[in-house]
Amino acid sequence: MTSILSSTFLLPSFTSHNTSSYVYPKPILHHHHHHLNITTPLRVKATLSMEKEIPESQRPLTFLKPSESDSSSSTIRSRFEKMIRETQDTVCNAIESTDGGAKFKEDVWSRPGGGGGISRVLQDGAVWEKAGVNVSVVYGLMPPDAYRAANPSSSSSSSSSSPPSPVPFFAAGISSVLHPKNPFAPTMHFNYRYFETDAPKDAPGAPRQWWFGGGTDLTPAYIFEDDVKHFHQTQKSACDKFDPSFYPRFKKWCDDYFYIKHRDERRGLGGIFFDDLNDYDQEMLLSFSTECANSVVPAYIPIIEKRKDLPFTDQHKAWQQLRRGRYVEFNLVYDRGTTFGLKTGGRIESILVSLPLTARWEYDHKPEEGSEEWKLLDACINPKEWV
Amino acid sequence: MTSILSSTFLLPSFTSHNTSSYVYPKPILHHHHHHLNITTPLRVKATLSMEKEIPESQRPLTFLKPSESDSSSSTIRSRFEKMIRETQDTVCNAIESTDGGAKFKEDVWSRPGGGGGISRVLQDGAVWEKAGVNVSVVYGLMPPDAYRAANPSSSSSSSSSSPPSPVPFFAAGISSVLHPKNPFAPTMHFNYRYFETDAPKDAPGAPRQWWFGGGTDLTPAYIFEDDVKHFHQTQKSACDKFDPSFYPRFKKWCDDYFYIKHRDERRGLGGIFFDDLNDYDQEMLLSFSTECANSVVPAYIPIIEKRKDLPFTDQHKAWQQLRRGRYVEFNLVYDRGTTFGLKTGGRIESILVSLPLTARWEYDHKPEEGSEEWKLLDACINPKEWV
Repeated sequence: MTSILSSTFLLPSFTSHNTSSYVYPKPILHHHHHHLNITTPLRVKATLSMEKEIPESQRPLTFLKPSESDSSSSTIRSRFEKMIRETQDTVCNAIESTDGGAKFKEDVWSRPGGGGGISRVLQDGAVWEKAGVNVSVVYGLMPPDAYRAANPSSSSSSSSSSPPSPVPFFAAGISSVLHPKNPFAPTMHFNYRYFETDAPKDAPGAPRQWWFGGGTDLTPAYIFEDDVKHFHQTQKSACDKFDPSFYPRFKKWCDDYFYIKHRDERRGLGGIFFDDLNDYDQEMLLSFSTECANSVVPAYIPIIEKRKDLPFTDQHKAWQQLRRGRYVEFNLVYDRGTTFGLKTGGRIESILVSLPLTARWEYDHKPEEGSEEWKLLDACINPKEWV
Repeated sequence: MTSILSSTFLLPSFTSHNTSSYVYPKPILHHHHHHLNITTPLRVKATLSMEKEIPESQRPLTFLKPSESDSSSSTIRSRFEKMIRETQDTVCNAIESTDGGAKFKEDVWSRPGGGGGISRVLQDGAVWEKAGVNVSVVYGLMPPDAYRAANPSSSSSSSSSSPPSPVPFFAAGISSVLHPKNPFAPTMHFNYRYFETDAPKDAPGAPRQWWFGGGTDLTPAYIFEDDVKHFHQTQKSACDKFDPSFYPRFKKWCDDYFYIKHRDERRGLGGIFFDDLNDYDQEMLLSFSTECANSVVPAYIPIIEKRKDLPFTDQHKAWQQLRRGRYVEFNLVYDRGTTFGLKTGGRIESILVSLPLTARWEYDHKPEEGSEEWKLLDACINPKEWV
């Protein structure tokens, strides 16, 4: 099962009472040698009505519904929210401290029915040109079809376990993209999220479902082997504390996910990525997600400290900007969280804070074979083992 | 009927023998007040195999198949190809002459089975930072379902008129995006195209289908009312020579098409746009398309001459770059030609030449009410009547 919650900027805040309709091209193309095959578009209308987010002047203790936060602070929901909010503080403090100049601007919002978020953005700092670190909590309704697709065992068993009405869900996540100024200092992205459905009331026996997802990945414009090895080794060490299969599996998943199909290249040098993970102990996966989130600062900040003040030329900067263009292409064309957020009327500024401050597209740019630019491109086309 | 051939950069050249598969989110979302509704993705696999384009050292007299170009030069196909190639020459000459510095770089290609194209790109000129003018001719196969959808009358009549096998089609088009450097000089895009199916051999009585499409639109960062009026008046004059209903209808169509839904704003100040036009005399529509194409230079170049050397500040440039970011968002997220081209393995450099050389995204940027930047944004949110 592939969840729509696989997102760079998961869980955007949603604007109020929009009605959306959009057209999708019908993506069924048949094979005919020597000919271009086209189809007409499939028109699908979708309507969506979102409760408007309300700006808050200060951060609430929790975005959970009062009934839940009162009854127990030991639920996975509650502990996951606590973890991502602590991670947001830790990462933002580390960024501000390393930047030495700019401070994060914070936007807090909530929704009357429960849920909300904290967006923090640092722009035009001494080290980072744009850094966004967002947390959010969403309460929603999952249509029965989606529930069945997400939970195949319930549809193959008795019909009583397949709920006829929408299933409430809960989702919480942290998402961050950090774009430095210096072309030798890499961009980093991470995102950790937890998803849970309620046990459907009208389908006795249907279980409560839950998943974890997330990952951390590095996108440099130039390769410093030591940096990339340090980054991957930190991810591997976090993984190895839990399961020796995790790092190789999630490293490959990351290479597969951040793939710019129309370029046949990845946006960067990967890291780890996982989604819809529920075939392990829930406590173990909460600990694993926490370990991954705690690894963000030690994986990334030492690299920035080493590279942030290196001298560079206009040519280095132009190449960084071309790679930023690829970042934009991936996020706007492929990233499921971004494209889902745009289509459903999410809070645009939270979704698109993942885009770099500036980007560049040159016609038919090809790095000279053997150059440093070519080496980066080669590693994006042919993913390497770094540790 | 909405054709996939509604494109900014229609008719890209296709790379060879790729097999594609992609995942679409299932875009059916039900309305529930106060809740976010999600669905699981619908997985659709599509395969596509394209004949590889062959670089040519010089422009052929025609990209039509030899049998067609020999038999008659008076067909609509032949005359349309001639028109777009003349337009390419005229526009490129005018751009080079006004730029005074850079020259277009030309890439010519063909396919063994017929068809090909000429891409011309001027980069980093004195006036334009990136200007692309492409023509292409494609021979392809349309699946029966698409033919029926494109031609409803054939499916509602006897089954013999609904072809059971793919229908060959022909398409030719010119497409251009011109991005100047000076923030007071507007970007312009135009695209004119002709589409034709063969009469299906195995469905006697099923007619040969044809359509015209295209448009010309203006995207300034700052409004000079005289410029916008001149631009729209030139489009209106071209339209009025043929049908008084054309300009109001195609002006609105343009405002509707170049809509950035997630921003609730248009990418620019519009012009004209039409698609799937076949309910007029074919000769008339060929003349109309020719008139529109001939109006590109007189609509645009006088504006550039007036604005290309105006002094500007870093703030003006930053606002232009933010609007270029919107251009990228529209083209990568919504433009049907771009998204279709990316998904089907088109020639990436031809498709993405429409993107600006540089673009910018600032978090939560809001122009001050009443400022020149605010006036432009207001006109993109609330389309105006200019003539």
